[in-house]
Amino acid sequence: MTDLPRHVDIRDVSMRDGLQIEEPIPLSAKLELLAAIAATGVREMEATAFVSPSKVPALADAAELAAELHHFPGIEFSALVASPNGAKRVIAAGMRSIEFVVSAADGHSRANVGRSSAEAAMQIPEIVAIAHDSDVTVEVIVATAWDCPFDGATDPQRVLDIISTATDASADRLAIADTIGTATPRRVSDLIAGVRPLIGDTPLGAHFHNTRGAGLASAWAAVAAGVTRLDASVGGLGGCPFAPGASGNIAMEDLVYLLRDSDIHVDVDLEATVAAARVAQTAVGHGLPSSLLRAGDRILG
Amino acid sequence: MTDLPRHVDIRDVSMRDGLQIEEPIPLSAKLELLAAIAATGVREMEATAFVSPSKVPALADAAELAAELHHFPGIEFSALVASPNGAKRVIAAGMRSIEFVVSAADGHSRANVGRSSAEAAMQIPEIVAIAHDSDVTVEVIVATAWDCPFDGATDPQRVLDIISTATDASADRLAIADTIGTATPRRVSDLIAGVRPLIGDTPLGAHFHNTRGAGLASAWAAVAAGVTRLDASVGGLGGCPFAPGASGNIAMEDLVYLLRDSDIHVDVDLEATVAAARVAQTAVGHGLPSSLLRAGDRILG
Repeated sequence: MTDLPRHVDIRDVSMRDGLQIEEPIPLSAKLELLAAIAATGVREMEATAFVSPSKVPALADAAELAAELHHFPGIEFSALVASPNGAKRVIAAGMRSIEFVVSAADGHSRANVGRSSAEAAMQIPEIVAIAHDSDVTVEVIVATAWDCPFDGATDPQRVLDIISTATDASADRLAIADTIGTATPRRVSDLIAGVRPLIGDTPLGAHFHNTRGAGLASAWAAVAAGVTRLDASVGGLGGCPFAPGASGNIAMEDLVYLLRDSDIHVDVDLEATVAAARVAQTAVGHGLPSSLLRAGDRILG
Repeated sequence: MTDLPRHVDIRDVSMRDGLQIEEPIPLSAKLELLAAIAATGVREMEATAFVSPSKVPALADAAELAAELHHFPGIEFSALVASPNGAKRVIAAGMRSIEFVVSAADGHSRANVGRSSAEAAMQIPEIVAIAHDSDVTVEVIVATAWDCPFDGATDPQRVLDIISTATDASADRLAIADTIGTATPRRVSDLIAGVRPLIGDTPLGAHFHNTRGAGLASAWAAVAAGVTRLDASVGGLGGCPFAPGASGNIAMEDLVYLLRDSDIHVDVDLEATVAAARVAQTAVGHGLPSSLLRAGDRILG
């Protein structure tokens, strides 16, 4: 606990990971939510995904949304892709930052993109080349970095191999993602300790879900291990809307509370985040699992 | 993260902190819940409180409950008190372990027991003497150790003063309690670092609520700072029953999951804890906020 970072960058993933399993909502409602999130001061947002509209109908309006992002000039917007073709669509839509997701587990990779993990990882150099040719940045995200819903625990070496492929290909950023919300602090520290020697100065992020209550504890373990990039969604959007209380991404307001009170600076304002979470609740038409939404801030002083 | 303990003792506080703000339930239902919790393998339980029955009607049956505890010989039961008279009642009821709570904040102390924090702390030597005269152990718990709902942030020195009074009086155990669920990891580590030099070999526990989502993160920070005694309740009992989703004590099953997957041994079985949480839901007649209850264990392997 002695070498805690002074600043953590939070990326909002409400618009993509948060909304992707919700019923599709109109573009106008999305833009209202986006404006509320922009008002928190957050500097980075995962805006959408350029994937199959039939598989993810909630994000079928990716190109239309991308065309509106110039209204928010202070924010770096990224879009998720699962193939070189997706990367080309991001660039054609005028966006400047691509996230390419590779599942470390074969079960999840095949279910998601119909390819083994190794086959998906082989696309990294091609996607980086496509992006860099247009001066667009690429973040390689390793999904199911701890566990797969089909294969069980992920061998950490599978994660390290993808990370090495990504650094060899000059990916601009890297991230490890707890796709199904099973990570715990010790496993987080251990994996980061394995990744760190492979990546030089390439920024490393971490992505957690709060499905088993340990999302914030895992995020804290990542920060204590030196990670300064974390994903979160307002209200904890991203849970299954058909299982009340089931938890999605870690809630941005809960994370901001935790970091603020741990003397770690973030660009995100707590009150504005709670306000954005209320907008998100209205947009999706159901309650969200965030704790701060219910309990409010502590009395400072 | 290098000197993590190998074992953590979890004390179940469902029967006291978990039930105290619920509508009173019959003794028979309490004993069913107690049996389900005993079946988890937990070694210590906070069974009840010997306090004013008019202030805490849910625990008015303390003596009757105490008379049944001999049916559970493998468990060390404790009872909470707020005065020397309460300590005498615990001993008269045949129990062998007393928890004396002292609020570090005056606002909370006056609201709870009508005395300032310093006045309450002055009772520590008398209570230890009463207990030790009967070979009964005393744990001094510092409540509102981080924040008070009336006074705001608690000056850590107020906590250290009570801890010193307790060690001077030869209290057998000590604990610091996040009474209103506002603690965060850095503040937890900092306070433990302050307490540690004062207490020699006296065991130190920590008690968290998950009100702002940071309960498990705070518990993890305590463990990472060397604390090996944590309180929890099955299902996360202890939240306000009139605020659905509001979170109580940290859920024992979520804590067991986190510690097990961090290679830290506990005596408590995860499946049996989830089963006990279901019994607790039936006993109180409403849902509980535990994550494992909803999400289930991860696929191991």
